[in-house]
Amino acid sequence: MASIKMANLLNDFKSGPLDYYRKKASFDWKKLKVLIESEEVIEYKNKLYNELQKYPAYQIDNLQTASLDEERFRTARQVHAYKSIELLSLGYVLQNVKYPRAASEIMMQLAPAASIKYGVSNSLFNDVVRTLGTSRHGHFITDCEDDKISGCYCLTEIAHGSNVKGMQTTATFNQERQSFVLNSSTFEAAKCWAGGLGQLATHAVVYAQLITNGIKHGLHCFVVPVRDPKTLLPHPGVIVGDMGEKIGLNGIDNGFVIFNNYEIPRENLLNKLGDVTQEGEYITPFKDPNKRHGAALGALSMGRVNITSMCEFYGSKAITIAIRYGAVRKQFGPDDKEEIPILEYQSHQYRLLPYLAAVYVLRIFSMKLIEVQYQFAIDSYLGVNKELLAELGPELHALSSASKPVSGWTMRDTIQECRETCGGHGYLKVSGIGDIRNDNDANLTYEGENHILIQQTSNWLLKLWPLILKGETISSPLKSVNFLSHGLRILQQPNIQISSVADACSPQNIISMYQWLVVYLLKRTYNKFQNDLNNGKDAFAARNNNQVFYAKNLSIAFIQHFMLQVMYEKISATSDPEIRSVLEKLLSLYGLFSLEKQHLTLFYQGAILPGSDFVTLIQEAILKLCSEVKNDAVSLVDVVAPPDFILKSVLGLSDGQVYRNLESAIFRSPYAMSRPKWWQDIKTNVQSKL
Amino acid sequence: MASIKMANLLNDFKSGPLDYYRKKASFDWKKLKVLIESEEVIEYKNKLYNELQKYPAYQIDNLQTASLDEERFRTARQVHAYKSIELLSLGYVLQNVKYPRAASEIMMQLAPAASIKYGVSNSLFNDVVRTLGTSRHGHFITDCEDDKISGCYCLTEIAHGSNVKGMQTTATFNQERQSFVLNSSTFEAAKCWAGGLGQLATHAVVYAQLITNGIKHGLHCFVVPVRDPKTLLPHPGVIVGDMGEKIGLNGIDNGFVIFNNYEIPRENLLNKLGDVTQEGEYITPFKDPNKRHGAALGALSMGRVNITSMCEFYGSKAITIAIRYGAVRKQFGPDDKEEIPILEYQSHQYRLLPYLAAVYVLRIFSMKLIEVQYQFAIDSYLGVNKELLAELGPELHALSSASKPVSGWTMRDTIQECRETCGGHGYLKVSGIGDIRNDNDANLTYEGENHILIQQTSNWLLKLWPLILKGETISSPLKSVNFLSHGLRILQQPNIQISSVADACSPQNIISMYQWLVVYLLKRTYNKFQNDLNNGKDAFAARNNNQVFYAKNLSIAFIQHFMLQVMYEKISATSDPEIRSVLEKLLSLYGLFSLEKQHLTLFYQGAILPGSDFVTLIQEAILKLCSEVKNDAVSLVDVVAPPDFILKSVLGLSDGQVYRNLESAIFRSPYAMSRPKWWQDIKTNVQSKL
Repeated sequence: MASIKMANLLNDFKSGPLDYYRKKASFDWKKLKVLIESEEVIEYKNKLYNELQKYPAYQIDNLQTASLDEERFRTARQVHAYKSIELLSLGYVLQNVKYPRAASEIMMQLAPAASIKYGVSNSLFNDVVRTLGTSRHGHFITDCEDDKISGCYCLTEIAHGSNVKGMQTTATFNQERQSFVLNSSTFEAAKCWAGGLGQLATHAVVYAQLITNGIKHGLHCFVVPVRDPKTLLPHPGVIVGDMGEKIGLNGIDNGFVIFNNYEIPRENLLNKLGDVTQEGEYITPFKDPNKRHGAALGALSMGRVNITSMCEFYGSKAITIAIRYGAVRKQFGPDDKEEIPILEYQSHQYRLLPYLAAVYVLRIFSMKLIEVQYQFAIDSYLGVNKELLAELGPELHALSSASKPVSGWTMRDTIQECRETCGGHGYLKVSGIGDIRNDNDANLTYEGENHILIQQTSNWLLKLWPLILKGETISSPLKSVNFLSHGLRILQQPNIQISSVADACSPQNIISMYQWLVVYLLKRTYNKFQNDLNNGKDAFAARNNNQVFYAKNLSIAFIQHFMLQVMYEKISATSDPEIRSVLEKLLSLYGLFSLEKQHLTLFYQGAILPGSDFVTLIQEAILKLCSEVKNDAVSLVDVVAPPDFILKSVLGLSDGQVYRNLESAIFRSPYAMSRPKWWQDIKTNVQSKL
Repeated sequence: MASIKMANLLNDFKSGPLDYYRKKASFDWKKLKVLIESEEVIEYKNKLYNELQKYPAYQIDNLQTASLDEERFRTARQVHAYKSIELLSLGYVLQNVKYPRAASEIMMQLAPAASIKYGVSNSLFNDVVRTLGTSRHGHFITDCEDDKISGCYCLTEIAHGSNVKGMQTTATFNQERQSFVLNSSTFEAAKCWAGGLGQLATHAVVYAQLITNGIKHGLHCFVVPVRDPKTLLPHPGVIVGDMGEKIGLNGIDNGFVIFNNYEIPRENLLNKLGDVTQEGEYITPFKDPNKRHGAALGALSMGRVNITSMCEFYGSKAITIAIRYGAVRKQFGPDDKEEIPILEYQSHQYRLLPYLAAVYVLRIFSMKLIEVQYQFAIDSYLGVNKELLAELGPELHALSSASKPVSGWTMRDTIQECRETCGGHGYLKVSGIGDIRNDNDANLTYEGENHILIQQTSNWLLKLWPLILKGETISSPLKSVNFLSHGLRILQQPNIQISSVADACSPQNIISMYQWLVVYLLKRTYNKFQNDLNNGKDAFAARNNNQVFYAKNLSIAFIQHFMLQVMYEKISATSDPEIRSVLEKLLSLYGLFSLEKQHLTLFYQGAILPGSDFVTLIQEAILKLCSEVKNDAVSLVDVVAPPDFILKSVLGLSDGQVYRNLESAIFRSPYAMSRPKWWQDIKTNVQSKL
């Protein structure tokens, strides 16, 4: 019965040059897709695909980059369409904890700028007002939902990003007028980068240093009207505008705003965490200002979980394009007669297949993470499971603080390698990879600078080392640190048995290697930090001198281990032997590839000294896995590929007709064969005046 | 006396936020600049800067990406200006063997698309006609020089790039009409990517399979008129057009051409290496068709040397931007009072300074390479030094086949890290880094696919292993392989003494480590290849299965060693102790950084097994060098930075006024504060029809 349903849910691909590999696959791609996504989600996605294809605003030909103005208009129309699609509404997607990610995948792959702009203008604005505000702010949420106002989120300033406490915008209480007066002392204090603020936002949640009676109370959040909703013209006292063209995501109107003695009502302070009375008295339920500060920035956690997924959405598109192209493109061969697909070459396999494995590991991991995060948000909102949430919150924070950077970096490298393996044709805009890279690029620096962010994870882990030394049982709701209960045993007798290539391919061995790595790096980083303190360094200096080769690698190894652990659990819950087999290979390939690239010397440094064969066995295992995954590669990307109308790449369409699609695209360009209008000015034998 | 001249040649920078580090520098940046470039070259560059600033076509504001049509028109005007500048003429630049690189540096940093377009339409076209043609083709060269025609170079086809012999365009001799008839069997056989062909070229050198009397004679080169020089309209039988928008370099009109029974005169065959008589008889001075084939593609060698430099030109711009920004941008600090520049953080230093070192190593190396290549071209043209050239040719080919990929990859990573260290503001177009990345991206896939190309180097090296085994003396004109004479000694007793961080920083030790690496990888790769042959694999399969972890790494280590060797020679010829000291640190930093990233496990695999401390010493040495180079970083980029009108980055200008320059750029944008025209269609409280 399941297979009948499956056949209705998933269509076969059009016959063509990709048949060669599709027939060689060792597993049924439809079964794997259902395993990863579930029939319900596939059904939901199919409905959404059908719906989206009805909107002209979403049918974009990517032959040429639009002008900034066209791009903005198009994105605004897409956001508008977004709001009107019932399948994307909050009410609909919350029916199933898997839907939000599915919706996000489709929208981020189809229209990333519109998707982010919608998220910031609607979800983020409302979330902050809901979380930090009280009943007196309800009308902002209703107005936003009713499209009467449009929101944005202003935290970053020109001169301050990561150092949030250093923000310079002030909000000074004026008792007489029962208002706050907002000021940006200089351009350096201008709020900036806020998505939606550049052209269309009418209201902003603004973080500013609260001052009452000359006393500073730290960063607080205010709802600030910036433009008249009727005219979209800025209010006097507000200098608001657009940041200009960016590397990518140009549909988003990222903006800046400068306040010049700009007055807002006292009630616009979002006052759940701290309030100012009519008399100008500051009151807060928090005794520790740091805790209030942390709570005020809580909305950013969801952002990092989302970005972990977003990177994978981009990576999936890129790997689809590169694998399909590599399967169709032929070059050279054993003799002069016939050429073979470039995917047959060891070098090509090594360049792409570990990244295909990375996409799978990240997809399965981030699916879990995003579901947990949504459940967390729902439970928090409903006020249930409080004890669990109190433990889960910090774990999610630590996990997402490492998964956002690692996902970003891994998919950055994936996209770049995909770009390069597509050769010259990959440099064409219609290959689609340039746009993917330019959009993903933002993930590397926004929503928490990666190198600052990842310190949150190592800081959390470092607190556990004394517990390990005491032999205490360590556990967390998602079990990411449970193995540390055996930390000392892992350090002394790691469960690693590698005396053959087959051993090196074993998922258990690989996971054990990562466990050893984490414990080793944890001990090493902890000791170096303590040592620096003992030698008279202050904590600031000690922490900073403890990042490269220590704390940063600790966080990376830790999150990689957890990703593999989640993948391993997924595989263990699978009964289909063919699917188990291919997923195990992907787990091992990603695990070994990352080990070889980043961590292998540590096994020698850590005095495990596994002998000179160790490196060779790992390398041979990687090449063996590559050659084994090669015939499955096309079917593996079929599982994660978006439909052609979303992929929009002449090199990567599901029919594999690379050259016919390329021909069509090149000929279709309005610029392809017409003589330029300015030809007479340039014609080579005329000495024109320039 | 020298210093008086120096003071006139190089101006001090404007005082500002960068003073802090400029005052801390351990050396005189002007002295270092003169050492690297020479006073003559600096004088030449100053003249060219002055000249270029007179041309409006070169004063481009990079606030917004131009439309494809604007970009093309601008580039065509820039090419026109290029031709009129005496300082850029071949006659002028050949006065000094250092001038061509200096001219290329400036033009590639200022206007890369125009610079490449000029190079292809003029230099490359004429070079090929001159090299492969005979006296009967002289008029093409004269016409091109007189701007009566405009050339381009057509080798690549839609379905064939690296596999040059697989090209499908045919040129069939028609005795009756004394002509060749050109045909592209399908779109897959269309010539493509040819720079200049898209819109403006009138003539192309086209590589096609020569057929006489039904017999195929392999690839030959023809001069083919494609457009009427008077109208710029294509000739009937020629379907010629533009490839469309690309990731970068959009000023270049890369084109495609399809021939449909298109007839050209018999005389248009460039007949130096092979000719067809009036009677249809094929004659060639080459007995071995492979040698004729190799000679026909000789013009590509210069391209690879140029690209080695071009990557560094891009990298220099990026590192200038990122270092200056990192020196001015402050975030966090040991206490709440004052923030410190992000360049003070260990993590930031490690992210940037090894790449600054890479830029220096590459600059000094590629300066040498390009001078040798120019001298080689001049000597070849003059027919002198034939014996030397016979040996130098293959060495240059092997060196450039590795230096082009390694320079491309290294600068790719440099540019990306620069982009990320500039944080959110680095994502703005006006940061300039996005454009640099998009332009450099082409270097990774054109003019020889990197992974194919780099096999040329390993193939050349593998031939030397039997000589090493025999204990023969090995030498080459540029001495890149001379150390292999001691190959067996190096393998058994490498001259590496590392028992302290200071040892690990020593240039001699580092160079010795690379020598060991090259010999070790050479032996290992040779043996694996032979082993595969002995086990029954054919040469094609054996070579392909010998790339990852073997031949590719061999070529990389070899070229890195030679780069360090060239740098070491440069330092040895320097008497200034301060300059020696800082250059030595750069050499060591690049050497160790690359070792740590790519090669370190080999020392364990190779049974050198230097103990567990080895890794730690290398890592500590890298961090020590980073902290020592940190205070010199701003002055080091001052040496390699182009002037502000070329750099055009709000984050990297020489005055260090990051925020003021950013403010000016954002406010200057025509789009910054005006309400979009389409606002009424979108205004959030109107239910507009989309």
